[in-house]
Amino acid sequence: MPKFDFDIITLGHGSGGLLTHRLLESGVFDILKNDILNQQHDGALLDLSGPVAMSTDSYVISPIFFPGSNIGELAVHGTVNDLAMCGAMARYLTLSFIIEEGLPIEDFWKILVSVKEAAARAGVQIVTGDTKVVEKGKGDGIFINTTGIGPVHPKACIHHNRIETGDAIICSGQIANHGISVMSKRKGLEFESDILSDTTNLNHVVEKMLRQFGMDIHFLRDPTRGGVASVLNEVAGLTGKGYFIEQKKIPLDERVEGACEMLGLDPLYVANEGIFIAMVKKNIAMEFLSFLRNEPEGSHAAVIGEVVDDHPHKVIMKSIIGGKRVVTYLTGEQLPRIC
Amino acid sequence: MPKFDFDIITLGHGSGGLLTHRLLESGVFDILKNDILNQQHDGALLDLSGPVAMSTDSYVISPIFFPGSNIGELAVHGTVNDLAMCGAMARYLTLSFIIEEGLPIEDFWKILVSVKEAAARAGVQIVTGDTKVVEKGKGDGIFINTTGIGPVHPKACIHHNRIETGDAIICSGQIANHGISVMSKRKGLEFESDILSDTTNLNHVVEKMLRQFGMDIHFLRDPTRGGVASVLNEVAGLTGKGYFIEQKKIPLDERVEGACEMLGLDPLYVANEGIFIAMVKKNIAMEFLSFLRNEPEGSHAAVIGEVVDDHPHKVIMKSIIGGKRVVTYLTGEQLPRIC
Repeated sequence: MPKFDFDIITLGHGSGGLLTHRLLESGVFDILKNDILNQQHDGALLDLSGPVAMSTDSYVISPIFFPGSNIGELAVHGTVNDLAMCGAMARYLTLSFIIEEGLPIEDFWKILVSVKEAAARAGVQIVTGDTKVVEKGKGDGIFINTTGIGPVHPKACIHHNRIETGDAIICSGQIANHGISVMSKRKGLEFESDILSDTTNLNHVVEKMLRQFGMDIHFLRDPTRGGVASVLNEVAGLTGKGYFIEQKKIPLDERVEGACEMLGLDPLYVANEGIFIAMVKKNIAMEFLSFLRNEPEGSHAAVIGEVVDDHPHKVIMKSIIGGKRVVTYLTGEQLPRIC
Repeated sequence: MPKFDFDIITLGHGSGGLLTHRLLESGVFDILKNDILNQQHDGALLDLSGPVAMSTDSYVISPIFFPGSNIGELAVHGTVNDLAMCGAMARYLTLSFIIEEGLPIEDFWKILVSVKEAAARAGVQIVTGDTKVVEKGKGDGIFINTTGIGPVHPKACIHHNRIETGDAIICSGQIANHGISVMSKRKGLEFESDILSDTTNLNHVVEKMLRQFGMDIHFLRDPTRGGVASVLNEVAGLTGKGYFIEQKKIPLDERVEGACEMLGLDPLYVANEGIFIAMVKKNIAMEFLSFLRNEPEGSHAAVIGEVVDDHPHKVIMKSIIGGKRVVTYLTGEQLPRIC
């Protein structure tokens, strides 16, 4: 960390005046520097051609540091992944902070370092940004918005209307790790756990998948807030098809399963940050799966079910003991501020 | 407003589950609908070619409703204008909400309506978004991030390194109206005033200016947070040139001047949302000014000074009574949360 002449963020750092200027000059611009950000304009000039995708997310996770990651890294991964789920390769990100007065500059710096490192690993550039400060008690440490843009992969054609009866439903990794890691540090709920968030950038593995399987990948979505159950309910609503899954096939770490039981949570509704649900053409499912299992992001991948004509608009799960139940949308809130 | 089955926003509306789905279905998607948003993907597929500009801003203004406008309209104008200041014509916007639990749905709806109307007037589409909810006391009503993208005008070449000695410094309208209108409603500071925020979209007038004057427009910037003084100090720092302005030439409404005196504020540091500072080639300055004065956005425009070789890196103002003083960066905060 460079030497700052202040220890905490104050309202003046959001004034647009000298303190803002100093915070940006001595911190943000320097660590995140690249040719586009260096223009220091309020907007960034980019070169893009052909079809692109754009995605935005505001990250309000609490706490801002959690086992395995922090809000800065999450804010890069999350938006990169949302674009990957559209078949687009994130190239440029914007970065906007809403900081609560009193945030230690050391925490801000750690977050910036994580942003920088995550952006480098994902191969994206932070091209412009914004910093606002709100009074103590009008925010919660730091909120981050990232908005990303990037070209759509030439072989990608990912849309819920491409989902067909018979498609295999694939889950790329163990579910619920992110949510449980965050809950283990949540105020008033702390428990001993060595479960780490699964947050990671999925753009590289998706790029490889698209290159190899192209149009046979019909749909992709990362089951973040609301978990796997919400993704499946959303596509069930949009497509009118039935979605059948088997509980025993869903990848789930024993420790996470135990924590969910302890907390009274259904892992199907718990947030994830480093896995995706794919719906792929039936006849490539096994080849797709073995491809995925050879990638670090997909080593626990499994076919968890299939798209059916029965029970239209509904998600049905066969439980471990053999019964069937409807998996509904999450009603109310289970884990607020998980991303 | 449609009939909602709830009166206030709750944490469940940010869960990613059924309540989020209902809030989006019955409210956001319906009012903002367009072909791209209707895809209801986490990202939007866009068609862009050639050089584009991208800009982001988080809006944390307090109060969220103020004379003449509200945070929703402001969030559209602000980002559209940041792009216009890069010579780019905003085409697509993302829209991301961080809502404090307990926000009346009626307020949220009013904001959405303003977003829709402002986007229509500016000719931009809201293409994707995000909705988060934080607990009471961890936010302040609503914060909004908008990120915009659009093609750079073919005749635009706007950059601080194009500023030349002799350039005229033009202010497109009366200063400080926005800041004073917001302060008149600020908790603990309310005063009687009929001053309205100047917030408006500047993209249409900038497009016309670029068509007519092209490369002779060297630099544009909207003096929002930190006001005119901050913009001039920023370019003074970046270019190393001197910036000389005359107080008597700066457009200022008498009532705003009076309010500033009462509040002990220097209008040069007060935020604006519907004006811009332009640096243009000396020999077109008068023609540019008369063009601008014929536009509704520029009816009070004036040449307020010029770029000089004297006093490098410094902004100097000749006061009404004839003395000269250095106009420095705002130190500390004068008007927090003004945008």
